[in-house]
Amino acid sequence: MNLVLDAMGGDYAPVETVAGAVAFVRDNGHTVFLVGKRDIIQAELNNHDTTGLNLPVVDAPDAISMEEKPAMAVRRKKNNPMVVGMKLVREGEADAFCSVGNTGAVLTAGHMVFRRIRGVHRAVLVTPFPNNNGLHVLGDVGANTDCRPEWLVQWGHLLTIYAAARLNIQNPRVALLSNGEETGKGNDLVRTAQVLMSQEAGLNYIGVIEPKEMMAGAADVVVTDGFTGNLVIKTSEAVAKYLLGVLKQEIMARPLAKAGAALAKPAFKATAARLDDKEYGAGMLLGLNGLVTVGHGRAKRDGIYFALKATAQLVSADILQKTRARTEILMQAQQKQGNPS
Amino acid sequence: MNLVLDAMGGDYAPVETVAGAVAFVRDNGHTVFLVGKRDIIQAELNNHDTTGLNLPVVDAPDAISMEEKPAMAVRRKKNNPMVVGMKLVREGEADAFCSVGNTGAVLTAGHMVFRRIRGVHRAVLVTPFPNNNGLHVLGDVGANTDCRPEWLVQWGHLLTIYAAARLNIQNPRVALLSNGEETGKGNDLVRTAQVLMSQEAGLNYIGVIEPKEMMAGAADVVVTDGFTGNLVIKTSEAVAKYLLGVLKQEIMARPLAKAGAALAKPAFKATAARLDDKEYGAGMLLGLNGLVTVGHGRAKRDGIYFALKATAQLVSADILQKTRARTEILMQAQQKQGNPS
Repeated sequence: MNLVLDAMGGDYAPVETVAGAVAFVRDNGHTVFLVGKRDIIQAELNNHDTTGLNLPVVDAPDAISMEEKPAMAVRRKKNNPMVVGMKLVREGEADAFCSVGNTGAVLTAGHMVFRRIRGVHRAVLVTPFPNNNGLHVLGDVGANTDCRPEWLVQWGHLLTIYAAARLNIQNPRVALLSNGEETGKGNDLVRTAQVLMSQEAGLNYIGVIEPKEMMAGAADVVVTDGFTGNLVIKTSEAVAKYLLGVLKQEIMARPLAKAGAALAKPAFKATAARLDDKEYGAGMLLGLNGLVTVGHGRAKRDGIYFALKATAQLVSADILQKTRARTEILMQAQQKQGNPS
Repeated sequence: MNLVLDAMGGDYAPVETVAGAVAFVRDNGHTVFLVGKRDIIQAELNNHDTTGLNLPVVDAPDAISMEEKPAMAVRRKKNNPMVVGMKLVREGEADAFCSVGNTGAVLTAGHMVFRRIRGVHRAVLVTPFPNNNGLHVLGDVGANTDCRPEWLVQWGHLLTIYAAARLNIQNPRVALLSNGEETGKGNDLVRTAQVLMSQEAGLNYIGVIEPKEMMAGAADVVVTDGFTGNLVIKTSEAVAKYLLGVLKQEIMARPLAKAGAALAKPAFKATAARLDDKEYGAGMLLGLNGLVTVGHGRAKRDGIYFALKATAQLVSADILQKTRARTEILMQAQQKQGNPS
């Protein structure tokens, strides 16, 4: 299997991106193309023993700086690592592209290089999300801020494929995220999507759920618009950080509690690990004619390792072909209904 | 000061509502009208020593059951505690109405009995919300799921009054909640509201903020639509519960950690107290011709006590008159601009 890594993406590139790729190839024996400024990446590689490892460097000299709008930078400077890396996939030299760089830039490059699968309304950004029972998948988490109900319905299908491929869940339970379960709750988008989804064939739709049910693990697939989904993951991160910060403050203010917390440290560490998204790796931009995964910008070598592992898993599960096949079936069903939108 | 309490509202009525009201009147010396089924409330009152306390019971025999849609029940059965209680305020017999009952029912009753202040686009539900520096105010948290940009701008003004009255903040910093600060982020609503707010006179607008800045205390007033706001508070509660649950699990799995956690227990308790919304009491439905506060449905006697205290504080701060005056000024400014919407 050949994967492509944006070696320049994320907060700790290229040191951590290269280190993560080296570890991944050493353990898993695949090829990872490292795309970015050749001399910088080569210098990083020289810090590792890469004997027998397939880590070809592909030069992409244009940087995506944060000074200009990243999505603009991707369009303006075509020799950037994202566009160059995705083209390797498009030309068939690799199976998937992975980046922990700017999400907006990945979205723009993904659409430019791969275009949408025929019949897909909009590509959707999806991520695994922790709950009491393990993980579910949540999307859209930021690709589309203003959505139409029929997009959410289609994403129900696409996320179903993703949940099966990524989390090995058979017949995933699909829910719509809302602010309440009573009739009349939800915004216009949710209320319309709710009706459409309940009538949709081939979807294991279980209804609308609130955040508390989501965190309890009531659904395997949670569908929402990209504005709400992005705020849900950002609120979760912010609240978790706030809460642990408050707890730390209160512990530090009490000598006895401080001693107790020292004993409880392994439990705190285990908690942090369960919340740490590096364990569940990368999200995916689903609906394009190419497999594109997006990890967290603050990923270090472990995060890169797991992002690549998640990407490999999606390649093995043949998610792209399954997405195309399902979209084809949906289009045929719509045409039968005389609704070829 | 005369307050009205919906004695039948919330998960623990009437035991906890009555107990909270008794404690509040004992400490603060105001009058609290207890509205609901007379005999039930009277029986509860008999369990307390109410000598010298002003706790008149007002009969409202119709129940708002959860079996029918609460908002419907409010309309259909006019002798319910919410409508009867609010009418006491409308007739001038009391200064404010407080409930920890169904929020949808309070919204409906509030609009029915008080109507909106002239010039107010939509009433907004606002609540204090904890952050690293203390509290800020967040709204709309559920009154309006689909919003127009000009509503958000006006809410910036109304929430400014509320933050000053409730949290004693001079010239509160006002922000719009969004999924990112870069240009082009946000949904259509936020992008338009952002432009309007940056041009709005008399508003200490500091720009858009993400959840992490909100939790860091970057703003005193955070404005959002009611769908997003409701999901933000519900996600926060769900994530906090999830996180503490995971921590408990990990501690319980380790004997040493268990011993340590026992020593750290006061710190855990203090953390829980800082997160517990009973400490900051009730939210408010702002923009009506009457002072209506809404506490948490799971409030026990302490929660009721603090909800009544928050309500009294808003009466003392004369928030209703201030809201009317500010709305009047906004209307005059709009008419000068030839935009009398």
